[in-house]
Amino acid sequence: MSGNTDTTPPPGPFDDVFGANADYVENFSLAGLEPLAARGLALVTCMDSRIEPLEMLGLGPGDAKILRNAGARVTDDTLRTLVLAVYLLGVDRVLVLPHTRCKMASVSGDAEVHRLIETRHGVDTRSLEFHTDNDQLGALEHDLERIRHHPLLPKKLPVAGAIYDVDTGKVSPVDL
Amino acid sequence: MSGNTDTTPPPGPFDDVFGANADYVENFSLAGLEPLAARGLALVTCMDSRIEPLEMLGLGPGDAKILRNAGARVTDDTLRTLVLAVYLLGVDRVLVLPHTRCKMASVSGDAEVHRLIETRHGVDTRSLEFHTDNDQLGALEHDLERIRHHPLLPKKLPVAGAIYDVDTGKVSPVDL
Repeated sequence: MSGNTDTTPPPGPFDDVFGANADYVENFSLAGLEPLAARGLALVTCMDSRIEPLEMLGLGPGDAKILRNAGARVTDDTLRTLVLAVYLLGVDRVLVLPHTRCKMASVSGDAEVHRLIETRHGVDTRSLEFHTDNDQLGALEHDLERIRHHPLLPKKLPVAGAIYDVDTGKVSPVDL
Repeated sequence: MSGNTDTTPPPGPFDDVFGANADYVENFSLAGLEPLAARGLALVTCMDSRIEPLEMLGLGPGDAKILRNAGARVTDDTLRTLVLAVYLLGVDRVLVLPHTRCKMASVSGDAEVHRLIETRHGVDTRSLEFHTDNDQLGALEHDLERIRHHPLLPKKLPVAGAIYDVDTGKVSPVDL
């Protein structure tokens, strides 16, 4: 790898994060972790910057596979990732965890997002499916069903849903 | 939300993580974070359980949008998520960060994964695209290009790639 890797951080917009990594390496404590999820969990959650997905569930590095996208939606990308996680990486249970005050659940639908981006930035995004849904629990139920009935995932794989409250830290299981 | 939310953790395979959340709520320190990424970064990385994506880059909760799937690949799901992150959630730079010893880069290709899962579990996964690629830097270059040339993302959006070393914690920028 070293032949193709420039180990000198280039000047520019990523200097701060590449620079900060030097301290991390100095105090690195995660060497020796196994590639298998030690506690068997795959967590599907949102990209949201307010979410710290391990501590909220009493987990640490090495314990879980973490999948994140806009809205914690179960997309085809999520499903191919879960198939790999289950059969090759020690995952034996899946939790899907959207959160309160999510932009993806606070709009009336994709059309509103398209209008918002067009108005603010002059960009026509109508060729994209954003997977917004203002019925958050309905969307979660749909997403849980996509996993539970996927023909390539084990029929008895435990699959649960919960909502993370960004204001209190509470994870509330939902019975769907 | 409370009307449809069962706040009593059900007995079963998620008891440990739901139970642990009670302590987290008790000591919750992230209230009041803004939905916008405070430091403007979107990080695309792998679901791998060995990765702690914030500390390694000197980031904390609230700073960055985190996107994770198998292999840190830039899929259509990644792209729709980045469009939302850039236009609605304060993201103004993107770092794509695969890692060393990634299963997705250590096989000869999808065919090997299909054979492995068939042999170990008797499941025929050949209908899926896993997006494995044993040329990790080639895949990363491809993925950076997908973002850089996406017609709906800003032409001047800074986009960088780096490799995370799971044995040392080092993030090595790559010039692609």
